[in-house]
Amino acid sequence: MFSEIIKPRFSDTDALGHINNTLVPIWFESARDPVFRFFMPELDLQNWQLILAKIDVSFLAQMFYGKEMEIKTYISRIGGASFDVHQELWQEGIKRAEGKAVMVHYCYKEQSSKKIPEDIKEVLQQHLISVETV
Amino acid sequence: MFSEIIKPRFSDTDALGHINNTLVPIWFESARDPVFRFFMPELDLQNWQLILAKIDVSFLAQMFYGKEMEIKTYISRIGGASFDVHQELWQEGIKRAEGKAVMVHYCYKEQSSKKIPEDIKEVLQQHLISVETV
Amino acid sequence: MFSEIIKPRFSDTDALGHINNTLVPIWFESARDPVFRFFMPELDLQNWQLILAKIDVSFLAQMFYGKEMEIKTYISRIGGASFDVHQELWQEGIKRAEGKAVMVHYCYKEQSSKKIPEDIKEVLQQHLISVETV
Amino acid sequence: MFSEIIKPRFSDTDALGHINNTLVPIWFESARDPVFRFFMPELDLQNWQLILAKIDVSFLAQMFYGKEMEIKTYISRIGGASFDVHQELWQEGIKRAEGKAVMVHYCYKEQSSKKIPEDIKEVLQQHLISVETV
Repeated sequence: MFSEIIKPRFSDTDALGHINNTLVPIWFESARDPVFRFFMPELDLQNWQLILAKIDVSFLAQMFYGKEMEIKTYISRIGGASFDVHQELWQEGIKRAEGKAVMVHYCYKEQSSKKIPEDIKEVLQQHLISVETV
Repeated sequence: MFSEIIKPRFSDTDALGHINNTLVPIWFESARDPVFRFFMPELDLQNWQLILAKIDVSFLAQMFYGKEMEIKTYISRIGGASFDVHQELWQEGIKRAEGKAVMVHYCYKEQSSKKIPEDIKEVLQQHLISVETV
Repeated sequence: MFSEIIKPRFSDTDALGHINNTLVPIWFESARDPVFRFFMPELDLQNWQLILAKIDVSFLAQMFYGKEMEIKTYISRIGGASFDVHQELWQEGIKRAEGKAVMVHYCYKEQSSKKIPEDIKEVLQQHLISVETV
Repeated sequence: MFSEIIKPRFSDTDALGHINNTLVPIWFESARDPVFRFFMPELDLQNWQLILAKIDVSFLAQMFYGKEMEIKTYISRIGGASFDVHQELWQEGIKRAEGKAVMVHYCYKEQSSKKIPEDIKEVLQQHLISVETV
């Protein structure tokens, strides 16, 4: 599991006085940095090897400005060329949002998916959880 | 069906040279304005009556700066207190992304869901599609 | 003068019930697209030739969700390698914000500024205003 | 001086491979939180007492994804009802951007500026620098 602490910004609020829902996919992408580094240790933008196929986010409770949040990031599925990232957003001991991102190992030059190398599969495996047990 | 034309911004691009995926939930929320108006004709922020329960987005093809996009918005399910919005993003004749938003008719003061009034159900009905046929 | 119509988004609001100030630099950059096209007619990202040196924005009146805005874009100074863009944001007949962007004709490969070609200077000239008279 | 560490996000990059300039006003607002707390210790959104009158930002060097940044926040002027915040963005030992925000002590109900109370002036004074000496 990877943990990232987020400080919500005043500009992240919306007119209802909460954090706007559109921030969650942004924070979740940011908190996938350690997963990106499995494939590109230096986050080399010239040699990016991942593409996002799908996301879903469930909004479980309202989120507030002025209190830190924690984003927890897990691997929840490892396939041949793709894998799933499960993420949760916690604030003051309450899970406020959770979601899944389906990532694909991808060659931008050839515009096609690629098998995930075995050594990376092993690293992903170390962060694998069963979502039912989360 | 509601249609909104979006002009992607330079700041919407990312280092891969495409539009970053995090913009799609932002655009989809913006394109739900006509649906918001069914419940709050003047978009009155003091009397907001909707809450977002869940979103999913599938990324089907890369999106580019410099060309207009169209967002198509449909109602795909009408329940007792909640309903689904199906949305598609098209650029140059290609469907680039699609997704669903589960919206709930909600009382922020009582922090609880409310039945959708019959007259609003009728309006939603006029925009209802079967997602299979989209 | 270039004019662009902006529809503020729900996610652009903040907890004070207005549009958050951080949107204005984003909208102003977007409304400089026609100026970018003077240098790169196809907005070719592989051959970008402009860099931003400085911005300022004055916030004159609160901005609201639910009403269209107009952004007016002018050229206010033409120098040897740089030029100024003057921009104004209007909503319901009231100027809500205005600002200046100092842009530099720039070679990213050589990381140095370049003279503005004479033919581009002529096009910029057609959009030149005296800021005092705006 | 207040210091805040920022981790740039993948979605903060643009097609030139750098961090897009529009992020800087967002980060600077976020790094003004400790200044907001002088006026509203709990960041109480129901009783907000500050309004932004003007910002400027100078972009001094390109900013990159994958490396932390530090934002340094100082008070650079204390007036009757308004004050200036000077901010700098550093990455890898290089000052990449700097700017000023003119903030006004403000009553949203009466829509008018208010004198800064003496006790807050004293706190602001403790963070005052001469910009020439920065």
